[in-house]
Amino acid sequence: MSDLFEHPWFSGLFGDADADAIWSPDRSLTHMLAFEAAYSRGLGAVGLVPPDQAQAAAEWIEEATLDPVVLHAGTVQDGLPIPALVRSLKAEAGFLAGAIHTGTTSQDVMDTALAITLRETSDLLSDRLTRLVDQLEQLKAIHGSNTIMGRTRMQAALPITVDHRLETWIAPLSDHLTRLTQIRPRVECVQMGGPVGDGQTLGAQNREMAAFLAKSLNLPLPDRCWHVTRDGLADYAGLLSLISSSIGKIGQDISLMAQQGVDEIKLKAGGGSSAMPHKQNPILAELLVTLARYNATQLPGMHHALLHEQERSGSAWALEWMILPNMAKTTARSLSAAVTVCTQITSIGEGRK
Amino acid sequence: MSDLFEHPWFSGLFGDADADAIWSPDRSLTHMLAFEAAYSRGLGAVGLVPPDQAQAAAEWIEEATLDPVVLHAGTVQDGLPIPALVRSLKAEAGFLAGAIHTGTTSQDVMDTALAITLRETSDLLSDRLTRLVDQLEQLKAIHGSNTIMGRTRMQAALPITVDHRLETWIAPLSDHLTRLTQIRPRVECVQMGGPVGDGQTLGAQNREMAAFLAKSLNLPLPDRCWHVTRDGLADYAGLLSLISSSIGKIGQDISLMAQQGVDEIKLKAGGGSSAMPHKQNPILAELLVTLARYNATQLPGMHHALLHEQERSGSAWALEWMILPNMAKTTARSLSAAVTVCTQITSIGEGRK
Amino acid sequence: MSDLFEHPWFSGLFGDADADAIWSPDRSLTHMLAFEAAYSRGLGAVGLVPPDQAQAAAEWIEEATLDPVVLHAGTVQDGLPIPALVRSLKAEAGFLAGAIHTGTTSQDVMDTALAITLRETSDLLSDRLTRLVDQLEQLKAIHGSNTIMGRTRMQAALPITVDHRLETWIAPLSDHLTRLTQIRPRVECVQMGGPVGDGQTLGAQNREMAAFLAKSLNLPLPDRCWHVTRDGLADYAGLLSLISSSIGKIGQDISLMAQQGVDEIKLKAGGGSSAMPHKQNPILAELLVTLARYNATQLPGMHHALLHEQERSGSAWALEWMILPNMAKTTARSLSAAVTVCTQITSIGEGRK
Amino acid sequence: MSDLFEHPWFSGLFGDADADAIWSPDRSLTHMLAFEAAYSRGLGAVGLVPPDQAQAAAEWIEEATLDPVVLHAGTVQDGLPIPALVRSLKAEAGFLAGAIHTGTTSQDVMDTALAITLRETSDLLSDRLTRLVDQLEQLKAIHGSNTIMGRTRMQAALPITVDHRLETWIAPLSDHLTRLTQIRPRVECVQMGGPVGDGQTLGAQNREMAAFLAKSLNLPLPDRCWHVTRDGLADYAGLLSLISSSIGKIGQDISLMAQQGVDEIKLKAGGGSSAMPHKQNPILAELLVTLARYNATQLPGMHHALLHEQERSGSAWALEWMILPNMAKTTARSLSAAVTVCTQITSIGEGRK
Repeated sequence: MSDLFEHPWFSGLFGDADADAIWSPDRSLTHMLAFEAAYSRGLGAVGLVPPDQAQAAAEWIEEATLDPVVLHAGTVQDGLPIPALVRSLKAEAGFLAGAIHTGTTSQDVMDTALAITLRETSDLLSDRLTRLVDQLEQLKAIHGSNTIMGRTRMQAALPITVDHRLETWIAPLSDHLTRLTQIRPRVECVQMGGPVGDGQTLGAQNREMAAFLAKSLNLPLPDRCWHVTRDGLADYAGLLSLISSSIGKIGQDISLMAQQGVDEIKLKAGGGSSAMPHKQNPILAELLVTLARYNATQLPGMHHALLHEQERSGSAWALEWMILPNMAKTTARSLSAAVTVCTQITSIGEGRK
Repeated sequence: MSDLFEHPWFSGLFGDADADAIWSPDRSLTHMLAFEAAYSRGLGAVGLVPPDQAQAAAEWIEEATLDPVVLHAGTVQDGLPIPALVRSLKAEAGFLAGAIHTGTTSQDVMDTALAITLRETSDLLSDRLTRLVDQLEQLKAIHGSNTIMGRTRMQAALPITVDHRLETWIAPLSDHLTRLTQIRPRVECVQMGGPVGDGQTLGAQNREMAAFLAKSLNLPLPDRCWHVTRDGLADYAGLLSLISSSIGKIGQDISLMAQQGVDEIKLKAGGGSSAMPHKQNPILAELLVTLARYNATQLPGMHHALLHEQERSGSAWALEWMILPNMAKTTARSLSAAVTVCTQITSIGEGRK
Repeated sequence: MSDLFEHPWFSGLFGDADADAIWSPDRSLTHMLAFEAAYSRGLGAVGLVPPDQAQAAAEWIEEATLDPVVLHAGTVQDGLPIPALVRSLKAEAGFLAGAIHTGTTSQDVMDTALAITLRETSDLLSDRLTRLVDQLEQLKAIHGSNTIMGRTRMQAALPITVDHRLETWIAPLSDHLTRLTQIRPRVECVQMGGPVGDGQTLGAQNREMAAFLAKSLNLPLPDRCWHVTRDGLADYAGLLSLISSSIGKIGQDISLMAQQGVDEIKLKAGGGSSAMPHKQNPILAELLVTLARYNATQLPGMHHALLHEQERSGSAWALEWMILPNMAKTTARSLSAAVTVCTQITSIGEGRK
Repeated sequence: MSDLFEHPWFSGLFGDADADAIWSPDRSLTHMLAFEAAYSRGLGAVGLVPPDQAQAAAEWIEEATLDPVVLHAGTVQDGLPIPALVRSLKAEAGFLAGAIHTGTTSQDVMDTALAITLRETSDLLSDRLTRLVDQLEQLKAIHGSNTIMGRTRMQAALPITVDHRLETWIAPLSDHLTRLTQIRPRVECVQMGGPVGDGQTLGAQNREMAAFLAKSLNLPLPDRCWHVTRDGLADYAGLLSLISSSIGKIGQDISLMAQQGVDEIKLKAGGGSSAMPHKQNPILAELLVTLARYNATQLPGMHHALLHEQERSGSAWALEWMILPNMAKTTARSLSAAVTVCTQITSIGEGRK
């Protein structure tokens, strides 16, 4: 029951194919090799190795086939796969070995690969936020002038329009799009710091290399190495949880509206029960609540990981690996499930008689 | 041992007089009355009561003395102090009673008061972030060219300059100033929604009233009522924790640097021990770690509170009251303690020989 | 708005006089002085100072008046109040000074005082759990044979008896009483470790002293010093959250039952609204949800604090101070509010016609 | 990078084959079918279907091959796999269909399967806790009389024996074994409640059936249905985090001891760096810290899930699925990694000269 996102059957509830692909080991490896290839070319561009040797090394990397068993063994030994990856790349590279990875470090590779993954994630979230807003606007167009009872403290208060309820669902989603736009350049950044993050290994060429990598990999060039300043990632995780929490409110409201006796919403699909065939369970609405509380639970892990010792914390860094990918997948699934729920709604509130 | 911020002796460690004042019950009451007075004037301005009656009601409110015992009894009964506050204001107001609170609701009052408190908090945080950056820049100017051992995974790696270490402390603080600027207009907002948040009680005048309040109270005018869309507050809480976590890294690094055998930093003050008079404990550096982990712990509470049922959730709203003020005070204290630690540092690293 | 437990008006909702007293600074100081007096007597009992001198020192401590200002200044300097407390006690004690605190340490004093506070807390919780179970049993006796709709996934499923619903509320409370009995001897323990927790300062007399203190202060004698093994405290915090979470389910169920359209419960009291006088808000039921989610939020802080460096972590220890007292107060208030809610219930479900 | 426990290469760091097997989908399906088979036999034993029909149905179930694709499609539709599983079992069972699943519900199946998984988990944890204590006792036997500097607040305090440091590592592990023994009968329990948890579907035979299932499946018979009283699971999760947190302290201490300049421990293995071949990184010690903070982060999710609405909460229940399995795997890995670290230690402290 452990990895629900790719579980043989629970993925039917929790899984999101697009997010799974973006965060897959294969995709991550592709990004890491893209970094290494760009880095080799960069060594030529900044004049540290002859350009043709740099180009040859890059092509060697691009044609390389990495054996997962080797990366696994390397991770057992080193705590991360890059030393083994580099050893593999260099093993039969002959004189090209000097144009591979020289002057960079594991964290440069892995963080830059993560930045690319975040770029793909942000694109996905942005598309889905827009689509969810569209769906909710359509619901407004159809049902907005209907009336439901406004409820405060879970008690009937005064009648409101369906428009008003839906606007409280839509408003934060629009704000999240703004937040996403503001946050992206702070996290989708190339990483180039070298062993201790001070960019001194390449000396004067370090900044030039970072700019080359940024351009090659189509990533923003930050004004610094961010090996130990992970506030961007924690902030991004916060946005992931803001999104899924805002959607959790929608799911909770729908669950409350669908209660017998309240009867403010009708859904055309709903889960069955093994014991009570008459039931139509609003399972996706409930799922939105689950995903919201899951992400809220995860978030502090990313803040504790900001207490990153000195020039690199193995423990804080690995905590990010355990937390962030699942938060991203949860948010992606929250959005896709919310879009589906919207398409299941056949009525909200009551029209004027 | 419970309220450490205002505890008779633990406030010596945790307390911050500025933040305590900003978040004090008295200050909050002042803001709530400021709302009520502005609202009465607004009733005149938008033409719902005669202007002189509105003005008289506002002055009546401004001269009112509220009895905490009455507010306490009201909170026992109603779960919040505003109904009792309004009853008190109206009790002897005679014909002015109709120009008091008519058409608004408890949450408008309390949320707008909170917005003013957040404005004061943001001003404080902004000043202190700037001051802390200045202090760290001074340390760079004095000690920056010294050398310390760069450490990764808590192991000696390669020598670095003190400049590099300090830059990793400063960089996120600068980013937090940018974040604060971006986030302020999203949370320091007037609230004007009426009983169920749809702004229908005042009808056509609702928007006009919101604009009047915003101008009177010197708050941004949001494009909506935010009774149930609390993502701004959760986002703000996230920034509070980002700030204290970034400072937590500084505290943790200092604690590590101050170890015997490592000896990379010297502090001119430090706590004594009841049993070991020879010790100089880096208590403020440790405190920075404590405050960071405290805020990281609190943060998810604000995200769970986003699952705000329907038009007002008594339970989710009250959860904010339990979480947010302490996070703000913790962040303020983290900043003041960090500034103090900076002034205690007499050396970092070693000069060239 | 910050310390809701003792806030001028919000204490009407969150405050609990018994818990506040148990966790008050005064009470804590009383326990710390009780430790110091018992310790002085112990120095006589184990033969390290002459018995009459030990007795005189104990009496001196028992008659001492500590100045909070001095303790505050000491906490500023040392990060905790004990060094200043000891300096105060010794200042004018003359030749008795040698019979005060010699061989013990700040953490022995503070942790033993905490153990006494936990004993008082456990007594309170135990009484209230018993009382709440009694109240719920009374509700069963009165309303148990009535019928309500059983609801799964917030959808009507099959009718059930009120007995069944109430039994799901009662069962975990009984289990919590068992847990409390099992956990108490693991946390309400005397602390006697000396400066680095190894009990070597008093040498052979250390164990004898611990036994003397345990007997004097009526606390269990643990088989070890627990300066850095704080799993008992984290486990206790877990039980606090289990209690408030189980009660949170009751509050949430009541809030759902009280909805218009569902109408499964009637409460004779309820909070009013400043804008909608017709409303009867189930504010205490909502409060139970708030308190549950607050405690759930706090809990991980106590687990992070288990990563307690070496022989004493200033940062992890102080994190406990920030978290545990509020959790205890929250649990106490959850119990008292739940008892009150029970007395407000006038009907549940429907009788047979 | 998402499921680190079974990731092609990161499982080299995070993976634990035993825990993965215990929590695998296949094993879970085996347990669910074991429940269904036992239940069919139980229908015969309690006299609700003819015994030979019951036996034939049980054998039919035991020989069944379930298609994951069908379970997946069922989960998409129903939010959980059991309705599809039951449909599959009954589809070609002819007259045996009536002896399959009649009178029970999805949650009975899944919770009982979980109870079996927890029994296997507890056995694993118990073995490993014992083994880790043994390893630490061996270290005591070899290095215990050596001396290291006792450190409080990360500052040198007084010399201590290695024995003392190691005893603070061992003591909580012993307590966790006691806790595990106390907690097991509260969670490794058969579940038999029927659709709304009141055991009324089978009427008088419900209790008899529960006893039959408990005996067949070798599980304790609880005094109640626990569909909505999930405190046992949250308590179990608390113990998982207590274990990993206690081990986290060991990992953090080792990381601190291994620092250059402190040099209190030597490890014979350690991870390499892609850039600094001279380094020997204590990666498993760091991992222990990561796993501890991960589990501490997860824990509140299980407490929030206690706010389980009415007779079954789809959202709270699914939150358990997202949290608990990963906590169990993390704890198992924490124990195995700690055992490995112990075997890597070649010296601690200094012998007397």
